[in-house]
Amino acid sequence: MLELYTDATPNGLKISIALEEMGLEYNVHRVYLGGEQMSDEFTALNPNNKIPVLIDTDEGITLTESGAILIYLAEMSGKLLPTDRKGRTKAIEMVIAQVSGLGPMFGQLMVFRGAWQNKAPEVSNRYFKEVSRIYGVLNKRLEGKAYFAGEEFSIADIAMFTYIAAGTRLPFARDLPLSQNPNLAAWLQRVATRPAVQKGLTIPEPFAQEKQFEGFIKSTVGLGDLHA
Amino acid sequence: MLELYTDATPNGLKISIALEEMGLEYNVHRVYLGGEQMSDEFTALNPNNKIPVLIDTDEGITLTESGAILIYLAEMSGKLLPTDRKGRTKAIEMVIAQVSGLGPMFGQLMVFRGAWQNKAPEVSNRYFKEVSRIYGVLNKRLEGKAYFAGEEFSIADIAMFTYIAAGTRLPFARDLPLSQNPNLAAWLQRVATRPAVQKGLTIPEPFAQEKQFEGFIKSTVGLGDLHA
Repeated sequence: MLELYTDATPNGLKISIALEEMGLEYNVHRVYLGGEQMSDEFTALNPNNKIPVLIDTDEGITLTESGAILIYLAEMSGKLLPTDRKGRTKAIEMVIAQVSGLGPMFGQLMVFRGAWQNKAPEVSNRYFKEVSRIYGVLNKRLEGKAYFAGEEFSIADIAMFTYIAAGTRLPFARDLPLSQNPNLAAWLQRVATRPAVQKGLTIPEPFAQEKQFEGFIKSTVGLGDLHA
Repeated sequence: MLELYTDATPNGLKISIALEEMGLEYNVHRVYLGGEQMSDEFTALNPNNKIPVLIDTDEGITLTESGAILIYLAEMSGKLLPTDRKGRTKAIEMVIAQVSGLGPMFGQLMVFRGAWQNKAPEVSNRYFKEVSRIYGVLNKRLEGKAYFAGEEFSIADIAMFTYIAAGTRLPFARDLPLSQNPNLAAWLQRVATRPAVQKGLTIPEPFAQEKQFEGFIKSTVGLGDLHA
């Protein structure tokens, strides 16, 4: 059985969407980021104190890092990863571009505009500029393609989706240049209408935005109070 | 043939080390980050304007993202990636932990202590604290193991190595808690003594630290002048 430890954040929701798209059975264990990730039990699963964590009890594997979990589930199910060498390579490349570029930079924008309430506008601006630049790069990557790895929906689209979608909802991210990047805007609509994506976004049911964001603030290293 | 576009940075050096460890033939094309990455020719290879880029001319594949290139080369050569499911999964997990965690956070420390000359000490401090926290997590991950994926040296070690090694050389990173994390310090020595690692660190030959760092400053989005 697959046991998923998660919260309703962009990284967590990637995995519920993937599991729904792949039609796999799993149990959900909610870990509220306002502090539950610091428990001894959770630290034993992930010494990095981050969600998501996936346990595959059949294989005896405990796995962290949303990008690694996406690749693991795709290989396990034989779904959402092209089978030709070029397509497979491109899908993994774009998963990695998301976890190493868009994800961390979007995260810093949340940290400095959100958790730190824009107290250092020049710093917030750096991240706004960087995430905006990345939106432009993603728009180029989608030129003439329906999805990031080509014509097939893949784990790369799931990885990118939860962040780009969050950009349309979070008050301090709504000025990101989505409509100025029409390939990206059209792709977002294409992904958002998939039934399994819509279902995945509700697992676990997000708390009110305020509570969800309070967890983020508390766990922001160097500014919050959970990693004192 | 493999064509590598790179510079002597932690992300670039990962790939020369991997190619040397795997004993693959390749040509090196140096891209100085002081501006050459913004040329039309290079932008055509990577719209994200970052090194490294690997072209596999036999397969017609142009690949970006150091983590994706490491996985690609490991699968192509059948080297530096364990073949059992658990080991393979752990190696990919740790490559992703490096590119999504240690890498970007170390990068922000370089940005705020280095490129921005510590003008916002609270911001620098956030990243110092976060990278220090990650060192502790890596130390735990290495408990009872010689390498990040187990007893075998793998691409995960290459990914982690160029960053942890840079931390011992860069003036503003020398106070990172290496000796306080003895598993990590012992692992660093273990990796640093490998002949192919030593050779890879010289490809391309680093410029003087000042010139190398000037490139970094100029290309820092939001603070430098290359992405105006």
